[in-house]
Formats: sequence, C-alpha cells, structure tokens
Amino acid sequence: MELISIIPDFHPLNDENLLRKADQIKPEISFADHLLPKSCQINGKSIAPEVLASLPLRRGDQAVLDFGNHMVGRLTLLLDATGSHQDAPAHLQIDLAEIRAELEESPQDYQGWLSSSWIQQERLHLDTLPARVELPRRYAFRYVRVTVLDTSPKFQLLLCGAQCRAESAADWKNVPPREIGDEELKKIYDVSLKTLADCTQQIMEDGPKRDRRLWLGDLRLQALVSYGSFRSLKVIKRCLYLFAGTRFPDGRMSANVFTDPSPAADDTYLMDYALMYPIVLEEYLQETNDAEALNDLFEPALEQTDYVLRHCLDEKGLIARDAAKESFIDWSDTLNRRAAVQGVLICALDAAAALCGRKGAESRRQECLDMAQRLRKAAKDHFWQKEESCFSDGGQIAIHTQVWLTLAGIMPQEAARAAFEKALGLPDAPRMKTPYMHHYYIMALLRSGLRDEAEAHLRAYWGGMIRAGAATFWECYDPDDPAGSPYGGRIVNSVCHSWSFTPAYLISRYFI
Amino acid sequence: MELISIIPDFHPLNDENLLRKADQIKPEISFADHLLPKSCQINGKSIAPEVLASLPLRRGDQAVLDFGNHMVGRLTLLLDATGSHQDAPAHLQIDLAEIRAELEESPQDYQGWLSSSWIQQERLHLDTLPARVELPRRYAFRYVRVTVLDTSPKFQLLLCGAQCRAESAADWKNVPPREIGDEELKKIYDVSLKTLADCTQQIMEDGPKRDRRLWLGDLRLQALVSYGSFRSLKVIKRCLYLFAGTRFPDGRMSANVFTDPSPAADDTYLMDYALMYPIVLEEYLQETNDAEALNDLFEPALEQTDYVLRHCLDEKGLIARDAAKESFIDWSDTLNRRAAVQGVLICALDAAAALCGRKGAESRRQECLDMAQRLRKAAKDHFWQKEESCFSDGGQIAIHTQVWLTLAGIMPQEAARAAFEKALGLPDAPRMKTPYMHHYYIMALLRSGLRDEAEAHLRAYWGGMIRAGAATFWECYDPDDPAGSPYGGRIVNSVCHSWSFTPAYLISRYFI
Repeated sequence: MELISIIPDFHPLNDENLLRKADQIKPEISFADHLLPKSCQINGKSIAPEVLASLPLRRGDQAVLDFGNHMVGRLTLLLDATGSHQDAPAHLQIDLAEIRAELEESPQDYQGWLSSSWIQQERLHLDTLPARVELPRRYAFRYVRVTVLDTSPKFQLLLCGAQCRAESAADWKNVPPREIGDEELKKIYDVSLKTLADCTQQIMEDGPKRDRRLWLGDLRLQALVSYGSFRSLKVIKRCLYLFAGTRFPDGRMSANVFTDPSPAADDTYLMDYALMYPIVLEEYLQETNDAEALNDLFEPALEQTDYVLRHCLDEKGLIARDAAKESFIDWSDTLNRRAAVQGVLICALDAAAALCGRKGAESRRQECLDMAQRLRKAAKDHFWQKEESCFSDGGQIAIHTQVWLTLAGIMPQEAARAAFEKALGLPDAPRMKTPYMHHYYIMALLRSGLRDEAEAHLRAYWGGMIRAGAATFWECYDPDDPAGSPYGGRIVNSVCHSWSFTPAYLISRYFI
Repeated sequence: MELISIIPDFHPLNDENLLRKADQIKPEISFADHLLPKSCQINGKSIAPEVLASLPLRRGDQAVLDFGNHMVGRLTLLLDATGSHQDAPAHLQIDLAEIRAELEESPQDYQGWLSSSWIQQERLHLDTLPARVELPRRYAFRYVRVTVLDTSPKFQLLLCGAQCRAESAADWKNVPPREIGDEELKKIYDVSLKTLADCTQQIMEDGPKRDRRLWLGDLRLQALVSYGSFRSLKVIKRCLYLFAGTRFPDGRMSANVFTDPSPAADDTYLMDYALMYPIVLEEYLQETNDAEALNDLFEPALEQTDYVLRHCLDEKGLIARDAAKESFIDWSDTLNRRAAVQGVLICALDAAAALCGRKGAESRRQECLDMAQRLRKAAKDHFWQKEESCFSDGGQIAIHTQVWLTLAGIMPQEAARAAFEKALGLPDAPRMKTPYMHHYYIMALLRSGLRDEAEAHLRAYWGGMIRAGAATFWECYDPDDPAGSPYGGRIVNSVCHSWSFTPAYLISRYFI
C-alpha cells in the first residue's frame, strides 16, 4: 500500500523549544567492532576466513563474507594488490544484504514501488592499493559480497580483511535476566531483542536498512518492548518531543518524522498513528513519571484526540467515512477502516483521560471519559451485527475490526472467540498482513481471555518467521508465502523491523 | 599493442638516496576553481547554467554539464531535493568524459584490452540532501553527465551547482610571449601547451585520465616542450631521479615508473625507452647545468647504453634480432624494430658522449663516439638497400626505419625525400600510429633539410586532429579514422596525452 495521504500545500511550523529539547537528549551510540567475517565463499566455494587474504581475485570473481549475525553499522574493507604492480584502478561492486536471498536478486530486475535507491549496492574505484576503504554510509547487513568488476591483466585484488563497526543506542546491560524454559519462546524472545537493539539508534528507527525513520505507530510498540528490556528512555523521550515539535499548524502530528538534515514532519497524516500519541505518552509516564515531559507534551497529546473529535466525527458519534480513509491499521487495499479507527480513538481517549488525571485537569478528564463512552455506544449500535455475532464495517467482516473494537472494550467477552474465528475464516475478508496487526490481534485475544490462543498464535506467526530463517524479525511475513515481498522484490525487504518485535513484551508479560 | 616485455621473477631494488631526492623536489600543485559549467543540457535540451538549480530531476533524467575546456582535477557537486521531504536515498550515476563522444559509449559494451576500470563512471547514494559532494578521485574531463538512477515518487533531485578544482604543476607565468601570426599554427601551439599543462602534475604524466604514469620515452618529449614553455624543471628533475632510483638490479631502467603508494619500477623493459635516458639527461643539463643531477645521474645514464652494448649486440655491431623485440618505437604488431633501435642506440651514444664530456671523462667519451661510429657503419652496411635507395629491416621498408637511421645520421641527405616517400607509399608497410612517431618523422624531415615537408606534415597531422575536434592532443590519431580507438572503445581513449604535444616545440623552434 502506498501512503497517499499527502497534505496539499504542506508548510510545517516547527516548535523550536520542543526540538531543542529533543536535540539535547540525543542518545549516545555505542560501537562494537566485528573484525573478521565468520565465514567466506569465493565464487561459491567455502573458504576459511583466515586464507581469504592470500587468494588473488580477478575480473568477475566474487567473495561473499558472512558476518554471522545481523549488523547495523559501517563497513571497512582492507584491500591490496598482488601480481605485477597495480597499473590501473581496481573497480569493485559491493552488495550488502540482510539475508542471503537478497544477494540472489539483481537490482536491475527490481521494478517495485519502493525506491530502488534502498538497495545496498555500491561501486568504487581504488586508484592506489593497498587501501583501507571505510564506506561512508551506515548499512544493515549480515552478508557482504565483493565483486571484482575489473583489475587489469597485470594485477589481482586481495581482500585482506573486513570489519564492521556496529552501532546501536540500546544498552544490553539494562536487560533484566529472564529465564525462559521453552526453547521456541526463548528463541523468539532473543530475536525480538536483537531486532529492537538494531532499530534503537538516534531515534527509534522503523528499519535500519529502510526507511530508517521514526513512525508514530511503530513507536508505541518500540517503547513497550524497550521498557521491559533496554529501557532506552532517552530515545523514547526524544521521539516524543520530535513528534510534538513538528506538528502541523492545525496541531495534528505527522505519521512520521525525518531527522536529517534537521527535524521535519513528513507530509503524511494517518489518523490512527496520530491517535497513538496520547497512548505512547501515557505509557511513557507510567514508566518514568517524567514531569517535564508531561508538562511539555500534554497539550500536543490532547490535540490529537481533540482534532479528530472536532473535525472527523459525524452526528452519530462515528468517525466519518472519508476521514477514516486517512489511516493505516494494516497494509490492505480492501480493508474498511472506519470501525477500527473508531476503536483506536476510544483507546486514545482513555489514555487522554489518564493524562488529564496526571495533570489534575479533572473536567477535561471527565469529558474524555464521557466521549469515550459515547463513541463506544455509537460503535456498538452501528457496527455490531446481531445475527452474525460480530462487528461489521460497511458490510465487511474483517479481523481488524474485531480486534480494535475488542481493544476499545466493546466486544462482548463471550462473543470474542467466535467473532475472531468468523472473520479469519471468511475467504474474501482482508487478511492480517503485518506483524503490527498481528500484535494487536494477540492483545485482543488476551483481552478476551483467550490466553492459550494468543500464545499459539504467537508461536505460529513469529515461530514461523524463525523457521523461515529469521535472525531478526521482518517488516512483513506472510505464512503462506514466507519468501514473498510486498514490494516486488525481496531485495528491498526490511528484515529487521521495529513493529515486529513485540513478542519480547508479550512473552515476558503474558507467557512466562 | 600490449606490452609483453615483463621481467620474470621481478624484484626491483630501489636506490633510496635518489628517491629521497626525488621526494624532496615534489612540485607544488596549483589549483584553479571553475565554478559553473559553461553550458548545460537536460535530457538533450540546452538550458542556461543559471536555471539548472531550479529544474527538478526525476528517475532517468540526465544533466550534461560542459565545463568548456579540458579539466584535470576534482569535481564537487551541490545537490538538493525538492518536492516532498526526501524519504529515500538519492542514487546517482556520474560519467566524466574528456570528449563528448565518450558519453555516447556504454561501459557495459566495452570489451577492449585496456582495463575498463579507467572508464570514469561513479555511482553514489546520498542519504541526506542538501549535500555538497566532493568526489574523492581526480578526473580528466570536460563533460560531466549526472544520471538520476532513482529518487522516490515523493521527491526530485536538484543539481544546484558543479565545481571543478583544476590541478597542475605547470606555471603559465613562465611561458614566454610568442607571436604566431599563422592562425592554424597558433591554434596547434596553444592546444599543445594546454595539453602539456594538464599532463604536468607531480610527475610528467602520460595522460591525466590514463595511465597517469611516468614513461621514459614520453618524458623526453615532455621535457623538450617544457623547456620552451612552462620550464617545469623541478618536475623533470624529479622524473629523472625516479627512473634512476628504481633501476633493475642489472642497472637497466624500467619503461615506466609508478609513484603510488611509493616509487616502483614497472616490470617492463623497453630498450628504446631506456636508451632515451642519456638523451633526456643531456638535454636537461643543456638547460640547467645542474651539477647535482650530473653527479647523481651520470652513471645511471651510462648504464643504459652500457647494458645494451654488453648484452644486446651481435658480432657485426648490430642489435641482436631477439633483443630488439623488447622495444617500442611505435604501436605496431608487424614492425621490424631492429634497425630503428639501432638508430636510437646511436643517438643515445652521442648523448652519452656529451655527458662524458661534461664529467671530464675523456676516454669514456671517445669510447662512446667510436662505438657510435662503429654502429653507424654496421647499420649502413646491413640495412641500406642500394637498389631501393632506402633502409630495409628484415626485408621490410618501414618509415620508422628511415626515420631513426636518419636521426642517427646515416641517411644520405640526397636520398632522404625519396626514401621517406617510398616507405610511406608501400601499401603493406607498417604505418605511423602515434603522435610520438609522427614527432620523430618531423624531426627526420628537418634533419634532411625538408623543412616545408615537415611543416606541411605538422599542419596535416596535428591540424587534422584539431579539425577532428581536439581541444587537447590525443594519445592516438589516425587521419583515416579520426573517431577510432586502438583499444576497442573510445571510452578508454586518452585525448590529453603527453607524447602528442611536441608541435609547441617544433613550431617555436622551426616554424616561426
């Protein structure tokens, strides 16, 4: 799904006070050097990394270095020449890949809708060897393939070494020790934390390969997992300030914020993402009781619910049909999102009420609670299908609708299991596409008392990803097509992605 | 012609004393900034350089910048984004070309025998715009083509500016004012000096695009022209020390020397190139009377003639047939080089005698002169074809043979014109392929009193190059195929090349 909610004549006004604070709490990045790849291949044949430096590479030769684990950082190559004196530049191509399958695809063949510029392929000329080549960009990779595009008949290339300086703002020392007896759950937990560590940079990045950007919906899940593990509170606070500091002139928050070259809102509004803000802030304050953040961010948070209440409700107390289209919920071209966004709004109002409570703004607190109740009633009246015993949105019975109205507290507990099963069983209903949606499905199962079903789904979905080879959790995973790509090429997939690692939270909180 | 005279088990021993001196006289490079290209095209349409910065470039768009003259130096591009915020890297390809025709050829199609790594094409990703991109390598170019490989649907690229910092060690202030009334000769003269300036770097480079290296045969011509123009005496002296400092253990000099990462002889011996050394040194001393250079370089110079006399002469006083194969003379696969190298050896002995005179080594001087006379007689006895009234080498009547035996002083003056015409008229005889050889042909015409023919040939050959579009003189130019390439692709041609600019010397000395 391409995000099309682009604001026309977009002229954001930054709040310099909030952004200065965001800048002051830029986290420190820690570095870890990985000196030698764990294993190497030359032209498809495995060799010991120790002998790599002695093997002359000629035009067309390829060396694949496997660093053994997912890396986010800078790559340095040590190169030399052998044979006669280097009498021409050495011309190299360097492909970096998070998973081996990326190396099998050719950038020229990629025709998808994401920019091909995300493909991690570089070319470089070396006029003088030996050379220590520090590639200037940060990459996300496990595999590095060096292809010799040309040397000359007189000399060959030597790949004497490769080094990755890994970067992360996550502090492993903060992670509480946790005994997880079950092997599958332990593996899922470990992969979740590794994924979060690699996404925790100067901001919470959605994916360190792509888009390397701060998204509000993702932030809610990133923060949840971080509280129970790395506790990257400064990063989370910085992210909260970045969203508040780059609000649109009408108070709304962008779905995502750029930080380079300076903080700037994207011109994309997603209603459900903006409504996450009071929720993220309330959860952050539950962890920290940070009075400064409450003071600075309370009004920006309430502006998110206020805007929707003022501009996007119809007379029945429902999100207007057109307004609901400016939302995400999940990747789907066919999903009717109105009921689900209604659910998100109710959750946001509950959080807003809690924030008002913290502020001592009692009448506003009551208004939020009253409004949430009104919206619950409207949703129940409008979307509940008595004869089907489930929620329906515009005639569509989707799991997404069931999930969000459950989380909003209006699914009758006794109806939940059947409603979920019905929506999942309908052949034409929209399917859940992203780990982001699967997380909320599990939360809805838990909310409905279906703990075993929740655990089974976690094992099936995230365990399935691991069985499909995941060493970090992916932006998208379709159990029916584990090797697929929604972009028209695995070469642009992001397999270390922020909205996918909530099992660490779920497992530690509900399943051990 | 691929140079195949590679020394087996090549282990050079550097003379650190000479190389330290070479290092101490490294010339200063001067810089000249060229801020805006003279003209621009976007997707083939001409635009004013001033509006370039306002034109959004999308995937597949191409901007061609024409800097108006040949440049040797560093390129800086100023880039920005327009449209929505940059949400993906910008991926660019940058092609740099000395002549426009290079841009028409595709690197992928090049299948020639020179390394494709000489093709000046770079690719780069820009994660953050705006960016000031200083490409790290030095290029030789007039045209820069920027191709947008990808942006994203949300933003476009702006090419806000381009700058070249030109580099040269040639000092234009040293060039004596010279009135050249004839327009064609003036143009040829000017282009010669521009070519020399661009080749005068930390060494005398053969070509600033390719090979960027110090060749001994080229150095003789570079120095000749420099004495009458930029007088880059330090550069020439440095080059003399580099050759002497990197002699093979048996005293011979390499045909060319690498300077990066540190001075090193190539493992290629070309007898005629090595024999140029006493000639270059003697001509340098005629200009400078540099006592230090005479003292340091006298023995290395004489080692070049001594080696050939000791190891490469047969009992008749002729260069042995096999030994002559290790020589250049001109690009040709069919040329018999024995007689021509004999001519070069005789010239070298004359120079060696002059060096001995400077040193006060009278008996060695006499030995050189006696040997030169003996070689002249042997050559005349063996190569002169009475019935043909010209020289023949192994049954082949080549212009190269006539030229070098003329320069060695054994062409009967009255026979020269006919001998040259005969060699040039034979359909199967090897033709002159390089400006290097054409230079010596003109010198032979002058030596034979054929001044008008010499000037006519200069106008025909170098004037022809200019009529074919040369703004600097080319490594190779075939009047019958001005757009040809001896390498299998113009994209690797070097059109600013050291052995091609002797007209500045010839014109100032003989034709005005």
